[in-house]
Amino acid sequence: MNAVDIITKKRDGGVLSETEIRHMVMGYTQGTLPDYQMAAFLMAVYFKGMNRQETICLTSLMKHSGDIVDLGGIKGIKVDKHSTGGVGDKTTLIVGPIAAVCGVPVAKMSGRGLGFTGGTVDKLESIPGYQTSMAAEDFMNQVNGTGIAVIGQTGHIAPADKKIYALRDVTGTVENLSLITSSIMSKKLASGSDAILLDVKCGSGAFMKNLQDAERLAELMVEIGNADGKKTMAVITDMEQPLGCAVGNALEVQEAIAVLKNQGPSDITELSVCLAGMMIFLGEKAVSVEEGIEKAKAALADGSALEKFRALVDGQGGNPGITEDPGLMPQSSLCIEVRAEQTGYVRAVDAMKIGLASQHTGAGRQRKEDAVDLAAGLVLCKKTGDAVQAGDVLCWVYGNDAEKTRLAAEEVKPAVAIGAARPEKPQLIKKIIK
Amino acid sequence: MNAVDIITKKRDGGVLSETEIRHMVMGYTQGTLPDYQMAAFLMAVYFKGMNRQETICLTSLMKHSGDIVDLGGIKGIKVDKHSTGGVGDKTTLIVGPIAAVCGVPVAKMSGRGLGFTGGTVDKLESIPGYQTSMAAEDFMNQVNGTGIAVIGQTGHIAPADKKIYALRDVTGTVENLSLITSSIMSKKLASGSDAILLDVKCGSGAFMKNLQDAERLAELMVEIGNADGKKTMAVITDMEQPLGCAVGNALEVQEAIAVLKNQGPSDITELSVCLAGMMIFLGEKAVSVEEGIEKAKAALADGSALEKFRALVDGQGGNPGITEDPGLMPQSSLCIEVRAEQTGYVRAVDAMKIGLASQHTGAGRQRKEDAVDLAAGLVLCKKTGDAVQAGDVLCWVYGNDAEKTRLAAEEVKPAVAIGAARPEKPQLIKKIIK
Repeated sequence: MNAVDIITKKRDGGVLSETEIRHMVMGYTQGTLPDYQMAAFLMAVYFKGMNRQETICLTSLMKHSGDIVDLGGIKGIKVDKHSTGGVGDKTTLIVGPIAAVCGVPVAKMSGRGLGFTGGTVDKLESIPGYQTSMAAEDFMNQVNGTGIAVIGQTGHIAPADKKIYALRDVTGTVENLSLITSSIMSKKLASGSDAILLDVKCGSGAFMKNLQDAERLAELMVEIGNADGKKTMAVITDMEQPLGCAVGNALEVQEAIAVLKNQGPSDITELSVCLAGMMIFLGEKAVSVEEGIEKAKAALADGSALEKFRALVDGQGGNPGITEDPGLMPQSSLCIEVRAEQTGYVRAVDAMKIGLASQHTGAGRQRKEDAVDLAAGLVLCKKTGDAVQAGDVLCWVYGNDAEKTRLAAEEVKPAVAIGAARPEKPQLIKKIIK
Repeated sequence: MNAVDIITKKRDGGVLSETEIRHMVMGYTQGTLPDYQMAAFLMAVYFKGMNRQETICLTSLMKHSGDIVDLGGIKGIKVDKHSTGGVGDKTTLIVGPIAAVCGVPVAKMSGRGLGFTGGTVDKLESIPGYQTSMAAEDFMNQVNGTGIAVIGQTGHIAPADKKIYALRDVTGTVENLSLITSSIMSKKLASGSDAILLDVKCGSGAFMKNLQDAERLAELMVEIGNADGKKTMAVITDMEQPLGCAVGNALEVQEAIAVLKNQGPSDITELSVCLAGMMIFLGEKAVSVEEGIEKAKAALADGSALEKFRALVDGQGGNPGITEDPGLMPQSSLCIEVRAEQTGYVRAVDAMKIGLASQHTGAGRQRKEDAVDLAAGLVLCKKTGDAVQAGDVLCWVYGNDAEKTRLAAEEVKPAVAIGAARPEKPQLIKKIIK
C-alpha cells in the first residue's frame, strides 16, 4: 500500500477503504508515515470530504489508538456532556451538580482551554484548594459517594487525534465536517461513558457559523455515537454573543454559583436547565427531556444543585465557602469600565471579539504552555436586545497587567454594536437532535 | 506573515501576493517553513490553481533561487529545446546537429532520466568514450568551434524547484498546470539561453492526456517565457504511441543515427525536422518556421547533420565510428521476439505500457540512484495503423537479465492492440503555439 496512491485517490474524489484509512492514520500515529503526506491527505479530505462510512472508520481508528477509559466501577448510566466550544460557556459547572442531584452519576474528565478562556479544569483551579487530579479509585469513590467528580483528563486518550489535530491546526485543515466529527467523537467514545450529550455551538463565535453547518455536524456526531452503541443526543445553541455575562476563569465560577442560586443571567440558566434535562433523560432518570427539564428546574429552585456543587468542591479539597463569600476567589487588581457612547439598543455582542479581548486580559492561552491569569476576564452588563443610554457601563474588564487590561478594554468597545432599533432577542436553543 | 493564513487564503480561492508566495517558496527552500505546511499549500494550489500573475511570480522565485547560467561567451542566439517527456523521444540527438549545421549555436545541458528510459545524458553515455561533463571554458569553446556541445546539467539550477518537485512527487500534487509550468520554466529561464522551444507531449503516455490540457500548458509556458524576455514557442505533439521505434539508451542512439542518415522512422523524422525548423527560426537563421523546416530537411538530405553529429561525438571524446558500425555500441546478450497472435491492423501502441516495459528491461530507473542498462530496451516493428499477420514480429525486447527481459516481453504483448479495421494514422504534430 502506497500513501501517494491513497492521497491521489482521495484527491480525485474516491471513497477510501478501511485498510487505506488505517494505513494513513496508524502510519502517521506510529511515525512511519511522514507529516507532509498526512498534511497533503488532510487538505485533500478538506476539499473532497469523507462519506459516513469513512468518517465512522476514521473515528473508530482514532478512538482505538489509545486507552479506552473503564468507568465500570461507577453505578448507573454515565452521561458525558461535550460542548464544541464557545465564549462564556460555564455550563459544566452548573449542569453537573443538577444531573447529580437528579440521580445521574457525573464522572467528568475535562480539558484545559486553548484560546479564548480556560477550560473547565482551569476554571475549577480558580477555586482555592480544588484538586483537579485524583487517583482513579478516589475518583470512582467520589462519584459513587457524592454523585459527582470533575477532574482533568488523564491517560492516553485518542493519541492519533491529538497528533492529527496538532497538524490540522498548522496546515489550514481544521474546518472540515468529517475531521471535526471524528476528532470530537473519537475522544468521547474512548471516555467510558454510556451516553453522550453534545452542545453544538452555532454563530460568529463558533466553528460552525450557520445553522445548516451546525445541523450537519450535530447529525453526523449523533449518528456516529449511536453507531458505536452509545445513546447520543445533540442540541444546537446560539454563539453569536457570549453565553451569560462573565468570561474568564474565576469570574465564570462566580456566575455559575449565581445560576445555581437561581440568580444568574437568563440565557445561561435556560441552557443549563435544557442540557441538564437532556442528561437526566439520557441517564434514564426521566421519561422525556421535558420531564428532565422540570426536574432540573426544581433542583435549582430548592437549592439542592447548589448544595451538590458545594459537596463537589468539598470532596475535591476546595473551599465550599466560595459560594457565600466571593472574596475567597482570586481577585484582579484592575477594573476598567467600558461605557456606551450612544443611546439605543444593543444590536450585537460579537462573541469572537469578546473572547479575544478576554484572552488578551490574560484569561486565555495563546500557546499550550502559557499560564492563565485566573482572576482576569470581563463581565458584560448589556447583551443583545438590551436598551442602553449613552454613558451606561457596557462591560467591566478585569486584569492584573495595566497595559493588557487597557488594550482588552479597547477591544471590547467595537465588539458591542448599538443601533436605534430594538433587535429581536436571539433564539438561544435552536434545535434538539436525537 | 503566517504560513497558515497563506495556506487558508489559497484554500479559500484567494489570489496570493508576491510577498505571500515568497514566504512559502523561500521559507521552504531555506528550511524555515516545514514540509507539512508546504505539502498542504501545494494541495490547496492543486485544487484552487494559480492565476497568470501568481504563476509568473512562482516561476521567477524558483528561477532566482539558484544560479543563472551565463552563456555570454557563446556567439549567436542560443536556443534551448525542452520536451515535457515522452517514450522514445531521442529528438535532441537529431535536432541539435541539424540546428548547428544551420548556424544556430547549440549549448545544451541535459538531464538524466527518471522513469521510462534514460535522459539524453544517459543515451550519450552509451556512446563509447563520450564525456558528458566538461569544464565551462571547454564547453564554450566547443560550441564556438564545432557549433554544438551536449553535456550534463551542472551548477545549482533552481534548487527551490528541485526541493518542491521532490515534495510534489510524494504528496499527489504533481498534476497542476501552474506547478508544472513553473517547474519547467524556472529551470529553462535559468539556463542562459536566449530563446526557448517547448515540445509539449499529449496523449496517454504523457502528463497531459488531452489536447485541451496540453494547449493550456503550452500557452502558459510560452506566455511566461516571453514575459521573462526570452522568445518562446511551443509545439504540441502526439504521445499516444512511442516516438519512433526504439526505446532504450543505445537503441535510441542508433535510431537517431538512422534519422540523421535520412533512413529513420517517418514520425521521429517528421518531428525532428519540425523542431529543428522552429529552432532555426528562433535562432534567426530563417525568416519563418517553414523556411527553417526546408533548411532542416536539406541538412538531413545532404549528410551535413550526420557529419555534425560525428563532430559532436568526436569533440566530446566519443568514437564517431558508431555511425558506421553499430557493433561499437553496447550490445544486449538477450533478444526476445514478441509476435502478433492475430491478423489485422495495429489499433494502438500504448506509450505508457511500452515505456514501463522498457524500464523493466533495465533501460530506465525506478530510483534516482539506480544504474541503467545502456544496451537494454525494445524496438517496435509495427506502429499504429500498420497491417499485421498473425505470427509477425511486433517488437524485439533486448536485455541482459533473463527474468527481467522475459517479464518485459510479457508486458509488451497487451500494449499493442490489434483490430480488424484499419485505424486512422494519428496526427503527430497537433499545433504550434507562438
